Amino acid sequence: MNIAVAVDIGGTNTKLALISQKGEILKRTSIKTVDYSNEDQYLKALFEALENLKTGFSFQNNLVGIGVGAPGCNPMKGHIDNAANLPFHKSVNIVQLLTDHYKLPVFLENDSNTAALGELYHGGARNMKDIILLTLGTGLGCGIIVDGKVLRGTTGLAGELGHVGVQRNGRQCACGKRGCLETYVSATGIKRTIFELMATTTFQSELRNISYQQMSARAIGEAAQDGDEMAIQAFEFTAEVLGEKLADLITCLEPEAIFLAGGLTSAGKLIFEPTKVHTNNNLLKIYQNKVAIIPSELGANDAALLGAASLVWKNQKVNSI
Amino acid sequence: MNIAVAVDIGGTNTKLALISQKGEILKRTSIKTVDYSNEDQYLKALFEALENLKTGFSFQNNLVGIGVGAPGCNPMKGHIDNAANLPFHKSVNIVQLLTDHYKLPVFLENDSNTAALGELYHGGARNMKDIILLTLGTGLGCGIIVDGKVLRGTTGLAGELGHVGVQRNGRQCACGKRGCLETYVSATGIKRTIFELMATTTFQSELRNISYQQMSARAIGEAAQDGDEMAIQAFEFTAEVLGEKLADLITCLEPEAIFLAGGLTSAGKLIFEPTKVHTNNNLLKIYQNKVAIIPSELGANDAALLGAASLVWKNQKVNSI
Repeated sequence: MNIAVAVDIGGTNTKLALISQKGEILKRTSIKTVDYSNEDQYLKALFEALENLKTGFSFQNNLVGIGVGAPGCNPMKGHIDNAANLPFHKSVNIVQLLTDHYKLPVFLENDSNTAALGELYHGGARNMKDIILLTLGTGLGCGIIVDGKVLRGTTGLAGELGHVGVQRNGRQCACGKRGCLETYVSATGIKRTIFELMATTTFQSELRNISYQQMSARAIGEAAQDGDEMAIQAFEFTAEVLGEKLADLITCLEPEAIFLAGGLTSAGKLIFEPTKVHTNNNLLKIYQNKVAIIPSELGANDAALLGAASLVWKNQKVNSI
Repeated sequence: MNIAVAVDIGGTNTKLALISQKGEILKRTSIKTVDYSNEDQYLKALFEALENLKTGFSFQNNLVGIGVGAPGCNPMKGHIDNAANLPFHKSVNIVQLLTDHYKLPVFLENDSNTAALGELYHGGARNMKDIILLTLGTGLGCGIIVDGKVLRGTTGLAGELGHVGVQRNGRQCACGKRGCLETYVSATGIKRTIFELMATTTFQSELRNISYQQMSARAIGEAAQDGDEMAIQAFEFTAEVLGEKLADLITCLEPEAIFLAGGLTSAGKLIFEPTKVHTNNNLLKIYQNKVAIIPSELGANDAALLGAASLVWKNQKVNSI
């Protein structure tokens, strides 16, 4: 039995697991990324966690490689160097550090891409070759798979779909631009939409009692499910913007399916149904109703871990999976 | 010497050539696509032209395959069936017809993709793997190359970039939608922009003496070169719209370069300079000034023919080229 060490580095948590080639998670642990204030402290904790993961595990000789998913990384060079949400103040050559320590092959990929690979190998895209996975959480993450492979771009920076333009001089984005897609379509985006609707409409709504800091996509989803008109309109608007961009993506890439994951998708039909309608409304006839828009089977949780493990099989050609 | 038969089927002309593996056009001919009113007449003329091309050619035994570029085709099935600009009233299985007649391997690809392949193998992208070629002519054509291969999409329909959305309820497009990119960014698009500017501004301009039917992108380019403010503003607006979309494309695909071809690009700096500025203005810092936006080396003319020939080498693996 071949086993991969999978590491999913996120802004809040870092998850670690031992995963079989079939995608079984055999053992897992995690550390809180936010508990560390610089790269040295964090890496010390990461290596300790890796040691704990291996300790007492009976198949140590079966470990064939380490797959790492991380935000803001350069998969070609093995660096993490653009990660605004990690406690890193300088570039970290994570691949080199892990290789030196464990003498195992180490593979790095952007976390949005590992999530897409997880969906491809172990989720709803098992029989597909061309998919896009969007994660609608705090921001909007995107992994694109073309012909069974991650679309990386020339230097590994492809797929920053959260920062395509929706509206000239639109909402201010943390990236410094205005009108980026993730300021509209994400858990944070729908929250901003609700506050815009509070300003521009006269809808009666319980949501008007909640402060901006306290507001959540979940609260908006629950209000919509209870028939709150303002909340329903917020989902409708979110779906309208998302549908326009999904139509553009389909026109450009013609994937077989687009998977949606992340907090915003827990609203289910409230987001999926209007998104499908608006996507179709913006498509040429040749594409209409051809591309499935469906929930991720794995969710954002384990998709990235499973995808990180798949880097090992994919790059190692241990066996085809 | 291995030789390919290349066929580039266009709405106005169909070009045919015998092309060596080095990209030398050894012999060429053409027929006028518009002279025929149905597929039977057209195919008869096409086969005659192919015979004429071969007649008297000394290396008939060196012909190793036929590469065809055509609009509205399904490269997987070998059909041409969505070609609004061709005199075809039904689906034509061009691959089967040519294979049956010539007993040679036949390969079909969308004409925007053959143009991109031409640029890749014989034009300005010879050392690149990830490029996009946009042809700004009557409409807007697009070929996307990822990791050295055409990005086809699941059923061969990827890359219809002319029909991504620029503006909700924007200009009416021949496709039935509104606000499509090619209604703004193409030779026709800039013509529409000039007429909008005639309506919305008070610029004095010689162009006001030209009717819509008589107006051309070339006339607008010449006026701009002579300092005509309205014409300059038309190029500026076109570049603004194009720059926004190129920024989105770069954010999504991170190519090494974007090549522009077609009638609108004959205006040179007038279109390239403001397009580069607007593209950068819409990009995240990580992408700024990294992706070259440059004229096609081959132009729209022979790129598609050379790309059609390359289908033979690429698929045949006769020799690496």
